[in-house]
Amino acid sequence: MNKYINVGLVGYGTVGKGVVKILEENKKIALRKVGKPIRIKSICDLRSIDKPELYVKNFKDIIKDPEIDLIVELIGGYEPARTIIIEALKAGKNVVTANKAVLAKYWDQIFTTAQDCQKSIYYEASVGGVIPVVQGLSEGLASEEILEIKGILNGTTNFILSEMTKNGVNYEAALKSAQNSGFAEADPSFDVNGIDTANKLAILSSLAWGDWIKVKDISVKGISDLDIEDVLITQNFGYDVKLIGSAEKTKDGIDLSVQPCLVNHDHAFATVENEYNAVMITGKDSGDVLFYGKGAGQQPAASAVVSDIINLSKFIVTNTAGIVPDVVYDKRIKIKVLHSGKSKASYYLRFSILDKPGVLSKISGILGKFKVSIASLTQSDISDNDCAQIIIITHKTCRENLEKALKQINATKSIVKSKVVKIKIEI
Amino acid sequence: MNKYINVGLVGYGTVGKGVVKILEENKKIALRKVGKPIRIKSICDLRSIDKPELYVKNFKDIIKDPEIDLIVELIGGYEPARTIIIEALKAGKNVVTANKAVLAKYWDQIFTTAQDCQKSIYYEASVGGVIPVVQGLSEGLASEEILEIKGILNGTTNFILSEMTKNGVNYEAALKSAQNSGFAEADPSFDVNGIDTANKLAILSSLAWGDWIKVKDISVKGISDLDIEDVLITQNFGYDVKLIGSAEKTKDGIDLSVQPCLVNHDHAFATVENEYNAVMITGKDSGDVLFYGKGAGQQPAASAVVSDIINLSKFIVTNTAGIVPDVVYDKRIKIKVLHSGKSKASYYLRFSILDKPGVLSKISGILGKFKVSIASLTQSDISDNDCAQIIIITHKTCRENLEKALKQINATKSIVKSKVVKIKIEI
Repeated sequence: MNKYINVGLVGYGTVGKGVVKILEENKKIALRKVGKPIRIKSICDLRSIDKPELYVKNFKDIIKDPEIDLIVELIGGYEPARTIIIEALKAGKNVVTANKAVLAKYWDQIFTTAQDCQKSIYYEASVGGVIPVVQGLSEGLASEEILEIKGILNGTTNFILSEMTKNGVNYEAALKSAQNSGFAEADPSFDVNGIDTANKLAILSSLAWGDWIKVKDISVKGISDLDIEDVLITQNFGYDVKLIGSAEKTKDGIDLSVQPCLVNHDHAFATVENEYNAVMITGKDSGDVLFYGKGAGQQPAASAVVSDIINLSKFIVTNTAGIVPDVVYDKRIKIKVLHSGKSKASYYLRFSILDKPGVLSKISGILGKFKVSIASLTQSDISDNDCAQIIIITHKTCRENLEKALKQINATKSIVKSKVVKIKIEI
Repeated sequence: MNKYINVGLVGYGTVGKGVVKILEENKKIALRKVGKPIRIKSICDLRSIDKPELYVKNFKDIIKDPEIDLIVELIGGYEPARTIIIEALKAGKNVVTANKAVLAKYWDQIFTTAQDCQKSIYYEASVGGVIPVVQGLSEGLASEEILEIKGILNGTTNFILSEMTKNGVNYEAALKSAQNSGFAEADPSFDVNGIDTANKLAILSSLAWGDWIKVKDISVKGISDLDIEDVLITQNFGYDVKLIGSAEKTKDGIDLSVQPCLVNHDHAFATVENEYNAVMITGKDSGDVLFYGKGAGQQPAASAVVSDIINLSKFIVTNTAGIVPDVVYDKRIKIKVLHSGKSKASYYLRFSILDKPGVLSKISGILGKFKVSIASLTQSDISDNDCAQIIIITHKTCRENLEKALKQINATKSIVKSKVVKIKIEI
């Protein structure tokens, strides 16, 4: 047996540097919990690093190193991350990763390989930053029939939405502010188009229902075309706009979506600001269980990775890692996914209509024809001379019916001046 | 190997019945996760039960049964719970318990025995009901230097405080309402006097700092002498009253207390109502992490117990239970506890003073003498002819100084008509 738990780190960016820092600062805490010191033996990165004595250029050299017990993958993306994880498991290494993209896409292959090789892969940092929701869902709520998972799962978009709400600035200005604060990358596409949230929702849903829920089964809409006007109007209606990943068990299948949603000012999600994340899990017996904490930033992400390293090391020390599978991926379980058109919700609709008689009756006529029922109708005070803003809150309605109605309204140039805005009302 | 995971249940009250029900209803979920069916083989209770085929009168018969893998202790209290747990571990059984009292009091003995016998003891249901905070703290935040733990940890008292706040009723009426709703027992002493919260705080603190933090080290005050008048006055100041268990790392030791506290309306704790619990853990790198869910009630408590049974069974099936210790109880670690008098906080003070000249200057003079600095002073509108109500909010002050000042004020009959009310301001 080695004197140390030897760790090979692949990826030495912001989070990787945070991991090294926390392992150094909290080495006594780690030693007490693991019983052996944890040592970073090698670091692999494309560029040379500030610790030349640990530097390894090729990840294969880390995988080949017989002294290394545990490989931490922090490069993100699909490849070579997938190869590193799979090859590490096959070489008898345990793995810690924060990579939601690779897990969501290769769930089947990764957990089947881990099970076949009797090795462990921990991935708490892949969802919700520092929030221990992976374990909370898979172990804390192990006994539960899960009915719903709803989450603010992306720190970047939540920071942008907070900026828009607090300062009344438009999307572009808020994005710039997030970039300046270090909460958005130079290319923020994966965050703002909702894909990152969808990856995380796929992971939580796969854990909750035992089948591999794929990102392609999730209806995804990001925040980049969100109009500041709608943020301000909905504020007055008592709502905040949040990007929510939602998975709901219905009798016809799991209803999966990522989209900007309106949440009531007095709902717990409304108080989740800036880079914070929150996940609400509803079980049949447990009721609502909420987890909340920082979803982005160097230290919170690195903290979750180091916790995984410590927890996994306890099993490595006792030669028990990988014996109990981390994910029971049972291919016989087939979970039905609800077609997104069948999803039911209330919606906020904003119509920029031509201000002349008969328009309102045409709109309500078309909505009625498609069985979209109106809960309230308000004329917004932001109107100019020949154009009025009408806000409609609908009752619960089937999404495909609503979309058919809006398509017909949008196509009728004598009614609306621009495309109707539609935002789901979550709570 | 047995065909089943055989469970022996000791204690067939509300939670015990819930455990049997959930294990039956969710047996497919459990089977998928464990790989073997979980079966309740025996149930021990003082009274005969509705399942005579499983009934065992003496717990020793369950401990002696070689087929039983796991014993679930749900009788509560110190004895015979302690004996059952210790004897079960010594007989080679793994244990699940929801018993915070026995854990807090015999932490040392229980975890040393478990470690010596290489058996596991799971106790997620002992703190926070359905909230997976034991695991969240000990594993999810394994890497963290924990700075603070604050929690609403008792469903009964939170239900009572919610009733007082919502309905403006006094403590006795609110207690009756909690009893009628099934959220308070006929004898609610352990809940309302803060001992139950102190037990849970001791468990969380012991996990956080690696030494056995004892209940006797915690300064405990319950809610039974809380005056509805103060609930109503503080509402107008923007506060809610909550019973909070608090453990704070200071440079002079851990500051541990349980007491009714004022929390700001916009703090997450203010939205925790009725039987819900919440725990906020602050780590150096993680920042604030919040857990929230139902802290009382049959199904939530039973759900947490069944999750423990499932998680522990995964290790029993693979013969790995107890190899990794559940609590690393390191006797070399000595955590210093702060003397409660040295604790620093802001306070709400209500003085029922004799309405005559010079009284206010006497009060502020005495406070000043003991270095208690006043942040604001208001005369409440609830005053009668010869008596005025004065509300003082203090700056952060050392508790023993404040107590000395109040002792002197209370002793001066020419100043106050009744004892000064003092409530800590938490946030």
